Amino acid sequence: MKIAVDAMGGDFAPAVVVNGALQAAEQYGIPVTLVGDGTTLEDIVGGKNPGGGVSIRHCDEVVRMDESPFKAIRSKKSSSIRIAFELVRDGQADAVVSAGNSGATLAAGLVILGRLKGVERPGIASILPGRVGDVILIDAGANVDCRPVHLLHFAFMANAFAVSCLGMKNPKVGLLSIGEEGVKGNELVKAAHGLFKESGLNFAGNVEGRDIFSGEVQVIVCDGFVGNVALKVSEGMAKAVSSMIKEEMRKSLLGKLGLIFGAHAFKRLRDSLDYETYGGAPILGINGIGIVCHGSSSERAILNGIRRAAEYLRNDVRDKLAASLGQGDSSGSREP
Amino acid sequence: MKIAVDAMGGDFAPAVVVNGALQAAEQYGIPVTLVGDGTTLEDIVGGKNPGGGVSIRHCDEVVRMDESPFKAIRSKKSSSIRIAFELVRDGQADAVVSAGNSGATLAAGLVILGRLKGVERPGIASILPGRVGDVILIDAGANVDCRPVHLLHFAFMANAFAVSCLGMKNPKVGLLSIGEEGVKGNELVKAAHGLFKESGLNFAGNVEGRDIFSGEVQVIVCDGFVGNVALKVSEGMAKAVSSMIKEEMRKSLLGKLGLIFGAHAFKRLRDSLDYETYGGAPILGINGIGIVCHGSSSERAILNGIRRAAEYLRNDVRDKLAASLGQGDSSGSREP
Repeated sequence: MKIAVDAMGGDFAPAVVVNGALQAAEQYGIPVTLVGDGTTLEDIVGGKNPGGGVSIRHCDEVVRMDESPFKAIRSKKSSSIRIAFELVRDGQADAVVSAGNSGATLAAGLVILGRLKGVERPGIASILPGRVGDVILIDAGANVDCRPVHLLHFAFMANAFAVSCLGMKNPKVGLLSIGEEGVKGNELVKAAHGLFKESGLNFAGNVEGRDIFSGEVQVIVCDGFVGNVALKVSEGMAKAVSSMIKEEMRKSLLGKLGLIFGAHAFKRLRDSLDYETYGGAPILGINGIGIVCHGSSSERAILNGIRRAAEYLRNDVRDKLAASLGQGDSSGSREP
Repeated sequence: MKIAVDAMGGDFAPAVVVNGALQAAEQYGIPVTLVGDGTTLEDIVGGKNPGGGVSIRHCDEVVRMDESPFKAIRSKKSSSIRIAFELVRDGQADAVVSAGNSGATLAAGLVILGRLKGVERPGIASILPGRVGDVILIDAGANVDCRPVHLLHFAFMANAFAVSCLGMKNPKVGLLSIGEEGVKGNELVKAAHGLFKESGLNFAGNVEGRDIFSGEVQVIVCDGFVGNVALKVSEGMAKAVSSMIKEEMRKSLLGKLGLIFGAHAFKRLRDSLDYETYGGAPILGINGIGIVCHGSSSERAILNGIRRAAEYLRNDVRDKLAASLGQGDSSGSREP
């Protein structure tokens, strides 16, 4: 097993990405190939790779955050994210982890590895800690303009992932909308509602933004624009509330004592909400394993993304997903 | 001055709405006309209206939450929300407050009072407490499918409202998207980006979900579907984080002490985040004052919605908005 890591992707790349990879190799024995500028990467790795678990694959180009994903992947043949997926295609690696441009990561996976049969658009599945259990939010930002059938595909894939990989039994599937009634929503959601009803999925109807945090509906489906806004709002709100409570508590002596006594609770909260802990979101629907990490990933986030990729490989996630989708043929169909 | 209140609108209507109105009349001397089923309302008011500040206007019908707004407003001529706006049209009231179907409230305002000149689609402006100041999020749920020019109109109206009514100076206007770069976003946002750049507004470019809580960009524009999801996600997250911290703190003796010492902080947090305190969102762009309250409004939320409507009347919000939009003609244009 080997994980190809896009060493040039992310707000703090390459240093933080390299260090996360070194930790994965050293602490968990996961072999990693860092893809990026060879000289720079060698400098950062330096003498910190005694076990030799980390190797380097040089490449010249990087896809920036502001680039159009498919255009960049097609024109930058030597970009780190593209080369990372090529290593998987050529049997030199088994999965890809990137904290770079998430649209480009998905595009590279699609162009280089192809799709699972029957899937029109792969989606990014963000796994969130709900109150009574995990929640999968799909799509988390890859497909900003969707047709109703794309939402249906997201639902099927996340359902299969939840069952085969997270061990959920008959997960409830909801459509993210602005009211529980079937008539509420925009044109996309109203049209998708009909498809979901006929799908044979355990469809729980429309859910609202607040249901993301309960865990009572385990698969929540939306287009990538709405999904990404929802994730960033919840991230922002968690930070705002946490610091607001701290600020308020600091205003009085009793509150200050409360803060000292409650410090552990705030740390636990940070851990359970933090994308660093969860370790990235899998791209569902490409013919292989790709993990998208948060742009501001720390060393720990990268480490956990790599661990997650290794776990998905050990659990044969790609094959299980292909099988659950009803496709025995695992060769995939490549983008033209 | 008189405020027409849709007594049949909201999850806890009519009892909670009536009690909120009674408090507004008694505690703040704001005259209110309750619109709804006469017998029911008289029963609830009972002897609690000694000053006579609350009057009742009987009507037979109610628009339910699951009804299609425009269809319901056109077919239910005797619905409480429609009659409330007719009272304003006929000079028997000056503003409308409703915790009912927000789409229907907007539709009734549009059909009965018409639009301010130059406005194609009125929008609901939610006013949120950012870290360094208030933030206006528009549209908060009225227009689920928008064209780029609608977003531009929302921006102009919220800008005018921020300047004339909230006293902001040259507020920064942002487009809610999924990346700060101009190329990020769905088709709607990318097209709107160009319009905003040429608009003469103090355009700060794209903002992300987390920027809703900072207050550094004062006007944040999106379509009503995205806006409503963002609001409900933030509401859900605030509750989730608050109860998560409490739960964690209860797990240890020190934490329990912390919770006791910090109780005041949690209360302050609840107050500052709660829609009950802010008191409803104004509909911008109709030819009059309409306030949409949260569906789960408590008595206090209704009370504050009525107070807010009175404040907007005293400040001539409608005229200031019309003037800022460059329309001297205040007759408005009515829907066909």
